[in-house]
Amino acid sequence: MRVLFAAPARQWDEWAPALTSACPEMELCRDGAPDSFDALIYAPGYPEDGATLDFTPFTRARVVQSLWAGVERIVTNPTLTQPLCRMVDPGLAKGMVEYCLGWAMRAHLGMDNYPQDGVWRNGVVPPLASGRGVTVLGMGELGRAVSAALVALGFRVTGWSQSGRQVDGVEVLPGQALPDALRRAEILVSLLPDTPETRNLLDAPRLSLLPKGAVIINAGRGTLIDEDALLHALDSGHLGHAILDVFRQEPLPADHPFWANPRVTVTPHIAADTRPETAAPVAAENLRRAMRGEPLLHRVDLTRGY
Amino acid sequence: MRVLFAAPARQWDEWAPALTSACPEMELCRDGAPDSFDALIYAPGYPEDGATLDFTPFTRARVVQSLWAGVERIVTNPTLTQPLCRMVDPGLAKGMVEYCLGWAMRAHLGMDNYPQDGVWRNGVVPPLASGRGVTVLGMGELGRAVSAALVALGFRVTGWSQSGRQVDGVEVLPGQALPDALRRAEILVSLLPDTPETRNLLDAPRLSLLPKGAVIINAGRGTLIDEDALLHALDSGHLGHAILDVFRQEPLPADHPFWANPRVTVTPHIAADTRPETAAPVAAENLRRAMRGEPLLHRVDLTRGY
Repeated sequence: MRVLFAAPARQWDEWAPALTSACPEMELCRDGAPDSFDALIYAPGYPEDGATLDFTPFTRARVVQSLWAGVERIVTNPTLTQPLCRMVDPGLAKGMVEYCLGWAMRAHLGMDNYPQDGVWRNGVVPPLASGRGVTVLGMGELGRAVSAALVALGFRVTGWSQSGRQVDGVEVLPGQALPDALRRAEILVSLLPDTPETRNLLDAPRLSLLPKGAVIINAGRGTLIDEDALLHALDSGHLGHAILDVFRQEPLPADHPFWANPRVTVTPHIAADTRPETAAPVAAENLRRAMRGEPLLHRVDLTRGY
Repeated sequence: MRVLFAAPARQWDEWAPALTSACPEMELCRDGAPDSFDALIYAPGYPEDGATLDFTPFTRARVVQSLWAGVERIVTNPTLTQPLCRMVDPGLAKGMVEYCLGWAMRAHLGMDNYPQDGVWRNGVVPPLASGRGVTVLGMGELGRAVSAALVALGFRVTGWSQSGRQVDGVEVLPGQALPDALRRAEILVSLLPDTPETRNLLDAPRLSLLPKGAVIINAGRGTLIDEDALLHALDSGHLGHAILDVFRQEPLPADHPFWANPRVTVTPHIAADTRPETAAPVAAENLRRAMRGEPLLHRVDLTRGY
């Protein structure tokens, strides 16, 4: 099995050992004749000259295995006819749970309400998690894992899912009930992918449905939010804070107003890094399935876009 | 049953409705002849003139029920011969879990490593919780609840307990193994009470056993830590940060060096407020037990001090 490592060269040292260890029967290549490859392992940023990858000459490839969970940069490529699989890395889900839970706790506990100015402010105690409404947008692998962790800590969790998937302890509302899901969101966590339906989903009218002082945590994709509407809702005092890990343009430009806004915390797309030691075995399993003609894991529906 | 509300007057409005609702057969009094009371409900700061409460004339009192978990201000009162019970409020344990978990996550995720200066720093990803060692000092009600929550999130948790109580998923080390417990503590959470054995337990030699960059969260009692040694360990760069909710003197004086130190975060003893709605039923149960001559819940061993 010959596999092309279709990812930026700087990622080779990090990934090649884990991938070949997880799949020793594979010959992992940095280049070669396109029609010699049985599969591609793909990450955004390839090819590095900025050109769009042409999948047409990869006539033998039975699978394109993404190293990233988000596939919006490749799913619209019209030359892609091979099966595409997202990465669903168990380590990635854990990292995402930790990020979302950690920042949700920071908002819940009001950690930033204690300026270190010598004044002892012990008058206001936050409610327990059982008195705090958290809404999670997106009930995919990541949304369900994050919801379960929030439920375990006692939060009142509402989910929102186009597909209506249920999660224990979570009231999952369907697509048309988005207004109700937003009204309950003292803390709003988004794990939605970038699709035509989610772009600008959080526009000014929908942001206005959030409770006063609500905190938004966006660890899905930056296209979810109308940035001007968000800044207006923060500056007007309607929203309390936004913790943003994903942006329309990454790295976020140094002169973007998010950096300077005291009600915005920017993190540099670190909520859920794919970790080679946990992701490589998932990729290896899919490569083997492709060789055997078996159903692939986490295959992307190109019509839905995720 | 006549019960004296032996707590500061400002707490009456918050507590009296919950207590009388939980124990309607009780006559809750703000004052009266000491020998007329069957029990006392006690909170520090009573009497409000700063005098030491004399328990001697309360000849009929079968129990002194504290509204606080910490009883060090009363346990040394030589006039106290009546049974003393600590408050173990289920809401308090939940609040403590949320505080310790939230601040541990802030340290674990390195939330403070992302200054909002326009620089996209995505090179360093923190380990997953499964790669992070957390040590919890004290395996009482609170320490066990906090440990269980940390284990549920995947942390490698070590406990330290004088009594050797075991907790699922936690390696609990006994008293003499304190050095080992400290060496594992990338994050150290203390929930120890104030007793002769715990005073200045964290002195300079013991602080030096913590790994470089370790973060201390003290939500137990302020007497645990040698303050000068802590400041020295922080300023030298050996310790990364200290999140302190409890102090030798509270409120912490405005000119105390903790306030100005960038490696110290002061919170005003809010980790675990007793909440009337969850604590009053516990007090009511103990008052009834006292009246019936049954064993009391959470009775303090005056020789141990907690």
